[in-house]
Amino acid sequence: MRKVVLHAPGDVRVEDVERPTIVEPTDAVIRLAATCICGSDLWPYRGADEVPQPQPMGHEYCGVVEEIGADVRTLEVGQFVVGSFFASDGTCEICLSGYQTGCVHRQPGAPTGAQAEYARIPLADGTLVATPGQPDADLIPSLLAASDVLGTGWFGSVAAEAGPGKTVAVVGDGAVGLCAVLAARQLGAERVILFSRHADRQALGREFGATDIVEERGEEGVAKVKEMTGGLGAHSVVEAVGTHESMHQAIGSTRAGGHVGFVGVLHDVAITGDDIFTTHVHLHGGPAPVRRFLPDLIRLIWDRTIDPGKVFDLTLPIEQAAEGYRAMDERRATKVLLTL
Amino acid sequence: MRKVVLHAPGDVRVEDVERPTIVEPTDAVIRLAATCICGSDLWPYRGADEVPQPQPMGHEYCGVVEEIGADVRTLEVGQFVVGSFFASDGTCEICLSGYQTGCVHRQPGAPTGAQAEYARIPLADGTLVATPGQPDADLIPSLLAASDVLGTGWFGSVAAEAGPGKTVAVVGDGAVGLCAVLAARQLGAERVILFSRHADRQALGREFGATDIVEERGEEGVAKVKEMTGGLGAHSVVEAVGTHESMHQAIGSTRAGGHVGFVGVLHDVAITGDDIFTTHVHLHGGPAPVRRFLPDLIRLIWDRTIDPGKVFDLTLPIEQAAEGYRAMDERRATKVLLTL
Repeated sequence: MRKVVLHAPGDVRVEDVERPTIVEPTDAVIRLAATCICGSDLWPYRGADEVPQPQPMGHEYCGVVEEIGADVRTLEVGQFVVGSFFASDGTCEICLSGYQTGCVHRQPGAPTGAQAEYARIPLADGTLVATPGQPDADLIPSLLAASDVLGTGWFGSVAAEAGPGKTVAVVGDGAVGLCAVLAARQLGAERVILFSRHADRQALGREFGATDIVEERGEEGVAKVKEMTGGLGAHSVVEAVGTHESMHQAIGSTRAGGHVGFVGVLHDVAITGDDIFTTHVHLHGGPAPVRRFLPDLIRLIWDRTIDPGKVFDLTLPIEQAAEGYRAMDERRATKVLLTL
Repeated sequence: MRKVVLHAPGDVRVEDVERPTIVEPTDAVIRLAATCICGSDLWPYRGADEVPQPQPMGHEYCGVVEEIGADVRTLEVGQFVVGSFFASDGTCEICLSGYQTGCVHRQPGAPTGAQAEYARIPLADGTLVATPGQPDADLIPSLLAASDVLGTGWFGSVAAEAGPGKTVAVVGDGAVGLCAVLAARQLGAERVILFSRHADRQALGREFGATDIVEERGEEGVAKVKEMTGGLGAHSVVEAVGTHESMHQAIGSTRAGGHVGFVGVLHDVAITGDDIFTTHVHLHGGPAPVRRFLPDLIRLIWDRTIDPGKVFDLTLPIEQAAEGYRAMDERRATKVLLTL
């Protein structure tokens, strides 16, 4: 089968390798319907994360169950499933409380790599969610988005307590930020402000439900949101970047007693007592427990209520994965879908 | 009237001064029933905060309305009232959302000082809550505690989402921490773990509802709480100290998806992305919006359901205020009540 392997920063290759097989009796092997490149894949691609040896890439996936281990109880061969970037047992106290990405048996969701024709998924019963049937082809991009960027943006909006009557601001106009806009609107937010300087992302943000766009950043961006909210700030702010500056833009844009939901992987962020004490903000986030939301997200996609697949603005065959990485690295694409 | 004034670090004097009078039409002047010394009063006393000029002390108060300004609508002379350390208008969006300490018109609750026979209270309608009648003398310490330490500990437990079925841990065995224990139990917590090394505070903690005591601190304390909670940590942790170490002890003691409620005034605390991202903890706290809780707290005290006045372990006449400060500074007393 074909599989994307990163040999060194910038060196993406598509190789022909053996299909993965069942290792643990709780595993499943799935045949992917499509796969994609994540913003976080750019860290090793750019050399910001080390690449000590060739590594399989990708952690977003949906597809058909090809094989199941002897202990898999809830899935059948032939079902169409969606999973996420962490595998979880679904039975521990942390999973039951809705934090599957904090599962006591947490492990990578697709350890063999998901930019491939087939992938092994551990803890299949706890990790995979079956769709109501075989999806129409046009639903595949959205189901794939549910696997990470939609689930992550959704968690950001839930963590920020987006809801009816609320003004929600979203820091970050990448695929996750755009999905947070979509989530905020679905959760009933009255007003959704997207920080964005890119016309194409602004347009998709508006399509997903943004009511206002703010082009300013940092202190100027904060001042703009305050001005738009009677001097108070937004009730809910989603942080979908992960830098020190974006986190502080998020905290600064939040009103006293408001909520910051952060889902950008935090890099070199420092928060002091002053940032969180007199400001009365709530802080909550981390690796999104996408599994918590998958049943609802699949239903919304199946019913064609939402179309998060629109975040894919470039589709390439997997053979051209290297060009996909280049396009995202050079910001020519927001998110790349790879067909198999 | 008599009033406590700090002239320089360590130099506490009781002076005879004019009674405060109405300045703004929204003011009230109250005759205090009793007053007390707060742990935070020790910052300038110890020279950790500067004392550039003699300053009136105290911010906890309850007593009888003596005089009201022309615009005060909801209070009458003669009513017994409790207020808090910040005055709030009670009408802005932030007050209405329950964050009166973030009120857009926030100001000190007793700008003339509350360690005094009389005090001027700004924004009286929004700040003061009347009791159902004149309290019996034995209720005064508890009503005074409601003004700050009880309200602050209560907010800590609410911010930590203490509730039925939850295990709550409390970092800090001062008056606020002990009141957080009382609050957690009143809010229905199943198990309340108090970090404490002092026999007298452990005893009051147990009286207030602590089910377990942990004497270890730092990493050892965290390990102990994990051991007591199946390796997961507490659902809810109240931070009632405010140091870098205690904040990290609180975060470390919290399970994935759990809540830290911090009410210790944060000093030199640094939080990184790693502390809050993969841990999935919720962080919320700040200056307690005591006003939100006062109606409930007054009722619980009035009905003799709770007796938070027990945090006062030394009572002195106001003339001996200097000795009260010394006793708290030398940790001979947890909290000192001054009679008038």
